[in-house]
Amino acid sequence: MMFKPKDQAVKDLDPQATDALLDQTAEKFFTVNGQTARQLMPFPHQPFRTPAQPWEQYDHMSVRVRLDQIEATEEAKQLLEAHTNSFGCGTAEDTSFTEALRWFALGGYDFQGMYEAVGMFKLGNGGMTALASRILDDYQGDILFNSSVQEIHQDQERFSISFKNRPPIQAKHAVWTIPLNCLSDITFSPPLDPARLQAISKGHTNTGAKIHFSLPTTEKGWFANTPDATQSDYLMSFSDSNPSVKGEAQGTNCIAFSYSGKLQDPGANEAIISSFKALRPDAEVQAYLTHSWATDEFAKGTRCCGGPGVTTRYLRALQKPHGRVAMASGDWADGWRGFVDGAVERGPLAARWVIQSQSV
Amino acid sequence: MMFKPKDQAVKDLDPQATDALLDQTAEKFFTVNGQTARQLMPFPHQPFRTPAQPWEQYDHMSVRVRLDQIEATEEAKQLLEAHTNSFGCGTAEDTSFTEALRWFALGGYDFQGMYEAVGMFKLGNGGMTALASRILDDYQGDILFNSSVQEIHQDQERFSISFKNRPPIQAKHAVWTIPLNCLSDITFSPPLDPARLQAISKGHTNTGAKIHFSLPTTEKGWFANTPDATQSDYLMSFSDSNPSVKGEAQGTNCIAFSYSGKLQDPGANEAIISSFKALRPDAEVQAYLTHSWATDEFAKGTRCCGGPGVTTRYLRALQKPHGRVAMASGDWADGWRGFVDGAVERGPLAARWVIQSQSV
Repeated sequence: MMFKPKDQAVKDLDPQATDALLDQTAEKFFTVNGQTARQLMPFPHQPFRTPAQPWEQYDHMSVRVRLDQIEATEEAKQLLEAHTNSFGCGTAEDTSFTEALRWFALGGYDFQGMYEAVGMFKLGNGGMTALASRILDDYQGDILFNSSVQEIHQDQERFSISFKNRPPIQAKHAVWTIPLNCLSDITFSPPLDPARLQAISKGHTNTGAKIHFSLPTTEKGWFANTPDATQSDYLMSFSDSNPSVKGEAQGTNCIAFSYSGKLQDPGANEAIISSFKALRPDAEVQAYLTHSWATDEFAKGTRCCGGPGVTTRYLRALQKPHGRVAMASGDWADGWRGFVDGAVERGPLAARWVIQSQSV
Repeated sequence: MMFKPKDQAVKDLDPQATDALLDQTAEKFFTVNGQTARQLMPFPHQPFRTPAQPWEQYDHMSVRVRLDQIEATEEAKQLLEAHTNSFGCGTAEDTSFTEALRWFALGGYDFQGMYEAVGMFKLGNGGMTALASRILDDYQGDILFNSSVQEIHQDQERFSISFKNRPPIQAKHAVWTIPLNCLSDITFSPPLDPARLQAISKGHTNTGAKIHFSLPTTEKGWFANTPDATQSDYLMSFSDSNPSVKGEAQGTNCIAFSYSGKLQDPGANEAIISSFKALRPDAEVQAYLTHSWATDEFAKGTRCCGGPGVTTRYLRALQKPHGRVAMASGDWADGWRGFVDGAVERGPLAARWVIQSQSV
């Protein structure tokens, strides 16, 4: 287990002792005014369940503010920070305490469960591609690809969606899965409500990148991270698989996540490879594979994770339908916000809303 | 928090200290030969995932055998035993170590998460009755109630289901949700495979009862349990709700679970009420409500929980289709066996199997 403290070189830490220290720090960090994480957020999938849960009153805090409140060594705090930074690919200042609490709660109130949920369990038999194909196989309607929505207009008489590159279409309802950071590209007429407009203009700050690296030697499982966004473009990296279980081929596939804003040009080979050495100074990189979601016009960022105050201020507004448009992006899911699971949460709610609206 | 050790009176224990001791004992209990619960059973929803997971080699052990292997005080062991006894409403001899491990793993590898999963989260807005009504609303086919299946016959030419009290019906396929303990009432022609027949003849041993008690005074939340199946009919009881949150009505509703075989006659008022005092000597009982699932011809028991060796020996056999019959009971679910969630797991698998069989 490798760890790079701020302004220091990478250290090789004992995994068991480090995990124990992380758990101990997490317990202090997530227990506020005598209330444990379970008491602060007993229902992470139902943030606004009544009566109001205690987490709301701490939503204004950043992870940094909370770290400064607890008694722990600087090393212990930095260890925790390295993990919570990964939630939004940002720094402790950028990440709200309650977003960190939500990930922790969703993982069963411990880091091990959280990492199992976000990293260990994957879709088998074809993964995301197979899931997309299955959905497409099931779907009976018409399909338009590569058609950017430009405006959505609705009044008593008509409801129409116009595009940059093709004629408009009329619809009774729309189910919208456009990510938060792309909503500002679309004109709504009548306009969206002020709270939602504000949320859209702020956007979310996660423009971190996921990069697959191929290393020439066959390595045992490892994990490396750092809270040092100044000296390291990458917040975390870990070995994912070896190319051959039979030992015929050599090498290690690993995955790295960058801090937001660090991957500007996915083709900047030398910079991308040499930066990786901030976390793994000894590594030789054969190849890498990435996609710049931050500049992709249909994404403009990666998984949504809120800064201080964002959840209490905007989540409810983002979830509401806008006229005949159901807003169904995983970026404003209750539970696994910014994950496919969050989209799976919002989709059926949108479908039910459309069905109910049509039967009125 | 009340606890009745074996052959002793009920004690009032400090909840925090008792929970801490339980967690500590659980860690010892579920770590076998240096492998933690997570390592023994990393995928509680996929017991037979390949490569084989370590839990299989311990399936022959009962909870008693494992308790005898660990170093802990007698009180600590009895505390743990009181909790694991509730999984199958049986004693430590009746419950397999791996069934206890499965509940623990499904709850996120801790008791608190496990109790949240099995006790805290409930279906809102009408509960099980509303769920049943919704399913019925969705269903488009014919319905027969109060018709006990007597025989299921299939050969190359025909597939028919005969009943005790009405003419037989023909079908292309059947999806079977009959509980394990009722399968022996039905004749299969051709007969079921030997492994499944053996599983059916053994049945499962959970004939515990759930009894709702109404107490006259408004009590704060409490929990009581005991591993002493000799002196107490009830293994566990806890306060569930107060009749009025506004304080206009007095009283407490609580739920008790009995050890298997203890509730023979649900109308035996005096015995049922006086037995409750083994766990709550101070309690005055106003009324109770129960149903004898153990003698109900369509249930013959409560939630399925296996004894030593049962999972490795019979689970795979029970899950297989029998000719054109999909076997879809929650009693042989992979994950939440014996729960509605287990039925929700098996149902879609059965439906998919029928669809695929018909398209061949």
